[in-house]
Amino acid sequence: MTIVSRRDMLGWLGGAAIGGVLAGVGGVMLTAQEGLAAKRKPKLKEQPKPAVWEPHFLDPNACAPMAYKGYWDEGLGCCYGTFHSIIGTMAAKYGAPYDQFPFRMMEVGKSGISEWGTICGALLGAASAYALFWGRKERDPMVTELFRWYERTALPIFDPGPAAQGVAGALPTHVPGSVLCHLSVSTWCHATGVEASSTKRSERCARVTADVAVKAIEIMNAKIDGSFAPKLKSKAEAACGECHGKGKVSPILKGRMDCTPCHSGGAHVADKFHNHP
Amino acid sequence: MTIVSRRDMLGWLGGAAIGGVLAGVGGVMLTAQEGLAAKRKPKLKEQPKPAVWEPHFLDPNACAPMAYKGYWDEGLGCCYGTFHSIIGTMAAKYGAPYDQFPFRMMEVGKSGISEWGTICGALLGAASAYALFWGRKERDPMVTELFRWYERTALPIFDPGPAAQGVAGALPTHVPGSVLCHLSVSTWCHATGVEASSTKRSERCARVTADVAVKAIEIMNAKIDGSFAPKLKSKAEAACGECHGKGKVSPILKGRMDCTPCHSGGAHVADKFHNHP
Repeated sequence: MTIVSRRDMLGWLGGAAIGGVLAGVGGVMLTAQEGLAAKRKPKLKEQPKPAVWEPHFLDPNACAPMAYKGYWDEGLGCCYGTFHSIIGTMAAKYGAPYDQFPFRMMEVGKSGISEWGTICGALLGAASAYALFWGRKERDPMVTELFRWYERTALPIFDPGPAAQGVAGALPTHVPGSVLCHLSVSTWCHATGVEASSTKRSERCARVTADVAVKAIEIMNAKIDGSFAPKLKSKAEAACGECHGKGKVSPILKGRMDCTPCHSGGAHVADKFHNHP
Repeated sequence: MTIVSRRDMLGWLGGAAIGGVLAGVGGVMLTAQEGLAAKRKPKLKEQPKPAVWEPHFLDPNACAPMAYKGYWDEGLGCCYGTFHSIIGTMAAKYGAPYDQFPFRMMEVGKSGISEWGTICGALLGAASAYALFWGRKERDPMVTELFRWYERTALPIFDPGPAAQGVAGALPTHVPGSVLCHLSVSTWCHATGVEASSTKRSERCARVTADVAVKAIEIMNAKIDGSFAPKLKSKAEAACGECHGKGKVSPILKGRMDCTPCHSGGAHVADKFHNHP
């Protein structure tokens, strides 16, 4: 379950730390070796062990409100919300290395990365949390299961009840059809009549953040206890891959997103620049 | 330039560390307070200062080969490549907190996040590096400038010369038109006849990783010295926003991606499921 290679040691402790010298910042951070030296003087030559990024079981229902709240905290958004509900919970329970992470960085995924509407930030936050524990061979099927679930599920599901920070009460749901923020948000707005820039839409995304955290933690828990078995397949991906996959007649396909939202010739992808309805 | 709020302190050192208690992992990590206690016994009550994530000027031409190499290192990919060329260079020069980052996590963006073809991982790596230093108000225009440049630039530009790890020599170029991995890679393959799963395509993406690192560092350096002024505007975004922007007749737009690749009714977004050529 736990990845600890020489590279991890270099990655976490830094190349310099392996050599035994790590510059302090403001006199606060001591090296692992300095710490050991202070505590166990007879064992000065002992090499420091690397910090271990090990996944822990979490209670999805306890983390959901934390993900929801994280979305609103200082407006840090969806990506911070899911990531912090997972790694922040481990930090509160287990301390280092989880609480050493510079959490604010995860604001990066807000609104699909700086308002660009690319990947849904809630999904990026969850995938990033996985990436602290598992390399791509183990992680990719987990991410794919989470992403396929998101494409096909009527969202949002979570209701914060009296803890609502945007709009209280039930919200209309819609199946995103895509893991991209642009499609997820704009199709929900189109279907529900809610403005993309409204507090009601923000409330929807805060709840989706909780939904993604719940599903991501269910997958993570299953991975930890060995019961994880990916279930969701894509018909479109398989069909298009018959000609555009590896070694086929036109082997240009890169990606696993459902093909239908952009390649089905629907009205939304018609020529909006010349024949707009 | 430097963000240091109470939340940063909580984020970096962890809430528990502020309280003075941080669990060790494998007996290696000592708390900042323990470290201080060991070093300066008379000043036990002193609070630890937070680690400071401060941006530094970098030489883009020195970082480009590092980004290229990072792409290939253990197959960690594009997102790791750009991020490590920026934060890894600072780690080598300045030590902590840069070298404390768990760099392997940045594999998350490889192939548009676990092969999904969403955001180009090289762009995600650069945006994530920015997010360690700047909050969204400062960062969003930097990301937008980088992303717009990527949409419009014939890539790849970088040539590793004799250091080539995939395929040596010149490569054909193509304007991605989109920040999405799926479009960036598949349109390049369509235009050049190179297979998406080939080493030549990997070589293209390794070089794009270097290109993104160079542009990202130019923007970062300009931000640090106060000369950063975003220049690139999107005609499509402005045109579509006239009806789909905030407060307009159909205010459903979320995102800043160029609209034309998916909404111009081109052959590539025609009905591929029923009337495929």
